[in-house]
Amino acid sequence: MAIPIDLRRDAAHSLQEQIYTQIRGLILNGRLATCARLPSSREMARDLGVSRNTVLHAYDRLKNEGYLDSQDNAGIFVSNAIPDQCLDYVADRRALRSFDREPPRRPDLRLEVTAPANVHLDRARARIDFWYGRFDRRNFPLNTWRRLINENLSRAGSNLSEYGAPAGCHELRKAVSSHLGTTRGMNAPADRIIITAGAQDGLNLVCRLLVQQGQKVAVENPCYGSAALLLKSYGAELCPVPVDHLGLRVENLAATHASLVYVTPSHQFPTGVTMPLERRHRLLDWAEKANSFVIEDDYDSDFRYDSPPLTALAGIDQYDRVIYVGSFSKSIGPGVRVGYLVLPEVLVQPALALKSLSSYGQPWLDQIVIADFIESGGYRNHLRKLRHRYHESRDALVAGLRKFFGPDADFSGDGCGMHILWRLPNGIKAADLVVAASKVDVGLYSFESVGAYEVGDSNLRKNSLVLGYSTLSPVEVTEGIGRVAAAVKSLAA
Amino acid sequence: MAIPIDLRRDAAHSLQEQIYTQIRGLILNGRLATCARLPSSREMARDLGVSRNTVLHAYDRLKNEGYLDSQDNAGIFVSNAIPDQCLDYVADRRALRSFDREPPRRPDLRLEVTAPANVHLDRARARIDFWYGRFDRRNFPLNTWRRLINENLSRAGSNLSEYGAPAGCHELRKAVSSHLGTTRGMNAPADRIIITAGAQDGLNLVCRLLVQQGQKVAVENPCYGSAALLLKSYGAELCPVPVDHLGLRVENLAATHASLVYVTPSHQFPTGVTMPLERRHRLLDWAEKANSFVIEDDYDSDFRYDSPPLTALAGIDQYDRVIYVGSFSKSIGPGVRVGYLVLPEVLVQPALALKSLSSYGQPWLDQIVIADFIESGGYRNHLRKLRHRYHESRDALVAGLRKFFGPDADFSGDGCGMHILWRLPNGIKAADLVVAASKVDVGLYSFESVGAYEVGDSNLRKNSLVLGYSTLSPVEVTEGIGRVAAAVKSLAA
Repeated sequence: MAIPIDLRRDAAHSLQEQIYTQIRGLILNGRLATCARLPSSREMARDLGVSRNTVLHAYDRLKNEGYLDSQDNAGIFVSNAIPDQCLDYVADRRALRSFDREPPRRPDLRLEVTAPANVHLDRARARIDFWYGRFDRRNFPLNTWRRLINENLSRAGSNLSEYGAPAGCHELRKAVSSHLGTTRGMNAPADRIIITAGAQDGLNLVCRLLVQQGQKVAVENPCYGSAALLLKSYGAELCPVPVDHLGLRVENLAATHASLVYVTPSHQFPTGVTMPLERRHRLLDWAEKANSFVIEDDYDSDFRYDSPPLTALAGIDQYDRVIYVGSFSKSIGPGVRVGYLVLPEVLVQPALALKSLSSYGQPWLDQIVIADFIESGGYRNHLRKLRHRYHESRDALVAGLRKFFGPDADFSGDGCGMHILWRLPNGIKAADLVVAASKVDVGLYSFESVGAYEVGDSNLRKNSLVLGYSTLSPVEVTEGIGRVAAAVKSLAA
Repeated sequence: MAIPIDLRRDAAHSLQEQIYTQIRGLILNGRLATCARLPSSREMARDLGVSRNTVLHAYDRLKNEGYLDSQDNAGIFVSNAIPDQCLDYVADRRALRSFDREPPRRPDLRLEVTAPANVHLDRARARIDFWYGRFDRRNFPLNTWRRLINENLSRAGSNLSEYGAPAGCHELRKAVSSHLGTTRGMNAPADRIIITAGAQDGLNLVCRLLVQQGQKVAVENPCYGSAALLLKSYGAELCPVPVDHLGLRVENLAATHASLVYVTPSHQFPTGVTMPLERRHRLLDWAEKANSFVIEDDYDSDFRYDSPPLTALAGIDQYDRVIYVGSFSKSIGPGVRVGYLVLPEVLVQPALALKSLSSYGQPWLDQIVIADFIESGGYRNHLRKLRHRYHESRDALVAGLRKFFGPDADFSGDGCGMHILWRLPNGIKAADLVVAASKVDVGLYSFESVGAYEVGDSNLRKNSLVLGYSTLSPVEVTEGIGRVAAAVKSLAA
């Protein structure tokens, strides 16, 4: 018997694979019936014009998978052990679904999650784009990176072929420890540091460790949306605490009965305000009294312009209550996916056990390169360079706002970081200005579009914008604010 | 007034930092009292023999952090706003804790987790080590890796400075899709693939999506310990289902009332048996009937020696019920931390949202290098080479066991993978043989030491060993089994 097999010599799949797939299809479609006899491998090879070995291998695979039976010298047959429900099998499930089956029932899912708005935006960018917290690719230390990677590659064979420590590579933990000591005033021994795939991954580990269904967790109002969504996805009941010009209003914490708080004291997101020392101490006191932990997300504290950085909350914490979340996304680039947690001693063992269960740690090469970058002093120089560039753009932004909107232009957060919060002139709505600016090729971002989380209806949501300046030169900033001023004028008219 | 400051010119910290730190310490220790007046910057600079700017910057930082107040021309004073509880602050918390404070209360932790036994073993290795599933560093494709990394590095500036898609880099998802099509018979479109930090990270995502407290989850008995521990850490109630010579006994599933099952059908861990086609179909039928998902962990299916690989469960799944978990840890090395999930269509959106919340995806460079490795055909050649080496070692192992323990030497799992399960000769206890072998520098591993999870007291636990051969040459395997045979002889005597 001849079998309808159609081989293509130019196809991506080998002849043997094509034979296998087509015979399997014929069996599953019922065109080759149970117990039907197939041509011998010799015949089939001759019919198809292929080597006998090609056919033998395809047959072997089909036998191995139970589609064919060979009875020694009696020949080769379609197996009679193929379950009935296979017999209308069609390789392409999408096709199948469209004509003869109901879609599968959707099983009960444990949770409905909302993805954050700020990741991987496929939006077209405006020519002058005030998106916040973006790393400018022109600042990526490519030559250093290339050198450090190549220096380490000779050791890649041994290091990539083994599981690393789930807590992260020792060299990097040590380097982060020393970096945090000099830049953030923290006494963070390497054994309390866990390397993560960025700040969000670190937050995720903390949430899994500490948050349970229905637990009250205090957050700044407004706050960083991805943190709020993550906490909620673990079942947290969020308790929004107002933010004033000095950050989270600590006196409002007691009433929340929260047992965990998430804060951004260096540069509050999105308002940009910095929490002063006195309030920091009161926050730590509250944590001690409430038997609570404080998550300190120090997302862009590397960039402070008018004074040295304030010591991190974790640096003045005498109660061992602060979980410090850091990342290289803002200083090297988010594509490297490396961040870290500094944990209170009491959390180190459980967090490590959880990390071992979850992901077995981060890729070795990325870690060792960053460790070398820090240890060689290159990272410090790199930060200095970035700080200098951002400083210039920040100055241009502040000057532009004052020039076009007068000395009373209302903004906060210009002391550090990569964005400011701008409260719009009276009568101008954020949503309208975003649209008007886009017409002159300027990208502006409202609370919604940066994914800020806010409960209640503050005027901020309606009347303010987050202005990021880290990818814009001073000239671009000035030009952009000029265009925005024109847009405001046209809206006001 | 003179302030007791002791500067070291050779110290790691700058003079400015030393001044800042020491004044802060004096204030917090109460040696500089609230409202005390400090020397002017000019005086202090003269006293210390440093430039006035150095002192000014230290003072500015202390003012900025609220430790000092300056009243215009009246001078500079210790702030009176420093909270009382700061005043016995000591920089080193460890020291603090040891002499005057109780350790912090340990807050209620959400879960007590057990870390898996098989990660990052710091054990000294025996000269001939039968540890399972290990990637031999001599097989790492170093030259290819170096070339691919350097080819891609010129694009690193733009790609590392952006967040990638949380699902993983498109090129890699496409490459995995095509690889799974040809090697595992799967129709896995790129948009159903999520790149993960290895198989465990993928499992973690699946657990978070599908497992809730008290949920019944069926597992093979015995099974892979890290999966069992992970499921339990999410609150799963494990339902162990016996494994026979054809894998999980599907007929026992109905009685468990489980709504999820975790299986290793290609090469059951740790027994090594392969589930035949007929039983695979019955497993899928059960899943459809029970409205359940099947997690297929295909951990070492790249290595099949005596026949082409059996199509994956996910390749014959007509119900869209199989969650396929794959990894490059066994084929490139666990240090690269890259794996993937192939999801049923109904789970893609929720899993992606969860992935976006959890980690924002994997590092770009590692992903693009693997994508290029696959697309160039290099990965296929690499797998072929590995398969050839493992095949030879496998042959040596089987021959060695037969030579020293007779034709009835009792083992399973030699058809594929990187280990076999060896049932010891009568009267020999696994624990004893492990000790005896270590004395002749041979590493043997029992169920406990490979972290296998087992409920009940099968004889396997006591009487069998997991023999990995992927890092041993045929000569080493033969030598090792010879030594083991001598150890068995001495134990039997």
